[in-house]
Amino acid sequence: MVAADNIQTTSTETKFDLLSYLKVRQQLCETALDKAVPMNYPDKIYEAMRYSLLAGGKRLRPILCIATCEMIGGTIEISMPTACALEMIHTMSLIHDDLPAMDNDDYRRGKLTNHKVYGEDIAILAGDGLLAYAFEHVVTETKNVPPDRILQVIFRLGRATGAAGLVGGQVVDLECEGKTDTSLETLNFIHNHKTAALLEASVVCGGILAGASPENIQSLSRYSQNIGLAFQIIDDILDITSTQEKLGKSVGKDLKAQKVTYPSLWGIEDSRQKANQLIEEACAELKPYGEKAQPLIALAHFITSRDR
Amino acid sequence: MVAADNIQTTSTETKFDLLSYLKVRQQLCETALDKAVPMNYPDKIYEAMRYSLLAGGKRLRPILCIATCEMIGGTIEISMPTACALEMIHTMSLIHDDLPAMDNDDYRRGKLTNHKVYGEDIAILAGDGLLAYAFEHVVTETKNVPPDRILQVIFRLGRATGAAGLVGGQVVDLECEGKTDTSLETLNFIHNHKTAALLEASVVCGGILAGASPENIQSLSRYSQNIGLAFQIIDDILDITSTQEKLGKSVGKDLKAQKVTYPSLWGIEDSRQKANQLIEEACAELKPYGEKAQPLIALAHFITSRDR
Repeated sequence: MVAADNIQTTSTETKFDLLSYLKVRQQLCETALDKAVPMNYPDKIYEAMRYSLLAGGKRLRPILCIATCEMIGGTIEISMPTACALEMIHTMSLIHDDLPAMDNDDYRRGKLTNHKVYGEDIAILAGDGLLAYAFEHVVTETKNVPPDRILQVIFRLGRATGAAGLVGGQVVDLECEGKTDTSLETLNFIHNHKTAALLEASVVCGGILAGASPENIQSLSRYSQNIGLAFQIIDDILDITSTQEKLGKSVGKDLKAQKVTYPSLWGIEDSRQKANQLIEEACAELKPYGEKAQPLIALAHFITSRDR
Repeated sequence: MVAADNIQTTSTETKFDLLSYLKVRQQLCETALDKAVPMNYPDKIYEAMRYSLLAGGKRLRPILCIATCEMIGGTIEISMPTACALEMIHTMSLIHDDLPAMDNDDYRRGKLTNHKVYGEDIAILAGDGLLAYAFEHVVTETKNVPPDRILQVIFRLGRATGAAGLVGGQVVDLECEGKTDTSLETLNFIHNHKTAALLEASVVCGGILAGASPENIQSLSRYSQNIGLAFQIIDDILDITSTQEKLGKSVGKDLKAQKVTYPSLWGIEDSRQKANQLIEEACAELKPYGEKAQPLIALAHFITSRDR
């Protein structure tokens, strides 16, 4: 069953040129992000926000948002402000997570972390600025979408970011540092909140902007929760198997911090298999959308096959 | 002219019982804030958010929002979610400003600062959580208000918080620490952003929710910019003349940090006079609202007469 699905999906993947698809949308995102946060007085804070926001990255969240919006019948244009907001929120969480009081990381996306360049005070404020601006940006820049849909997007972004989302996940993650008896349930809580919540918001907000039905939203939620967990499993594996050069951030952190991870519970091979299974289940949710689901299906497979 | 205005306003003040007015609305705000952020898993982050959010304080921003909404013809009910959001944002800024990397304060509102109780990591996350939740809360809890007005509120809250608002003000404030040649222009920038922007959002959002006209919004903006600057001048004076016991936070900080302040530029007496003048100008903006403006007029005078 899983094998057959695999073959079917591989053949779908061949027809769809994900790399070109990603390249076009990544470029559009880079341009939109650059335009979204122009320089202004006081220079230092705009520089700091732009330093981390424009540091490259896969732009996975914006592209998931755009791809879902297009699948449901919307356009790149109506989803781009929300796509940018998602990247602003993601960047805020990276800047704050990297702080000495948190994970104390010196490198991110191959560059010095924000506080290493601008100082801790500015890094904290750059995160705050990006978070506040995300909401403002969605309101000022989203055109030709009914206001009640925009309000739903604001709600989803807020929920995915706060204590019921990535902040809550990060808190439990910090609590589990150095603990060797973290349960699978707790591990799932961490990643469902720290990683999957914002990925889910990315997909679901793209759907909402295009007018997705409640049933659409439900299947999009299941798709994104599955890819969110798979994404984290692969992240854990890469922390063991990849190099700092490839990943652009410190590796081996989980082992050093004696953190329980999926590979430490299941081993690398079983973890990879579980990630693949989650991706298959995710893609099954998109069957009703037929050909239109190709980008989201290819993105799901991209998550498990990535090496950085 | 100023003297005549003073007498007139004093007589208005006598008729209006501000203390009872404040007491009723403060109690409503306390109840609403307590209900807005209930305990949940993970306990620690909700405890940390509630610790600072429910630590008392004047609730000036929520009450300005509610009072303006009522003046324009709205109700306490439609403005309460935004009022709570304003206090969440204000609390976020206090938690982050108090961090060792910023102002490094141990006391706030007479209690240990958030990071002294919960640690720096949780304090950073509690601020992030409150900020994200502010936006979510406005969307989920505001009833019987057209969605486009709620979107305007989200925009104003985001703008007042980010680099174009209090984050920007805090950045310039940090840059000026230890500088003895800060210009009046820079000092005004700091306080127009660090203090006045969120006070302005409080007033203007109250107006927007009640359906204020563009002309209303303009006079409300001028009223709130004036009281914002007056508020900061009085804050500077209290830092010199008050005690930690009365103020609930460290005093003499500005002198110690060799910071340029309004009293250091103008002296205490002239600063107080300038604050009074700003308040008179603020109240003049509210003349068209007649009796209905009594709470906002009394609140403006409360700002200059407060001793904490």
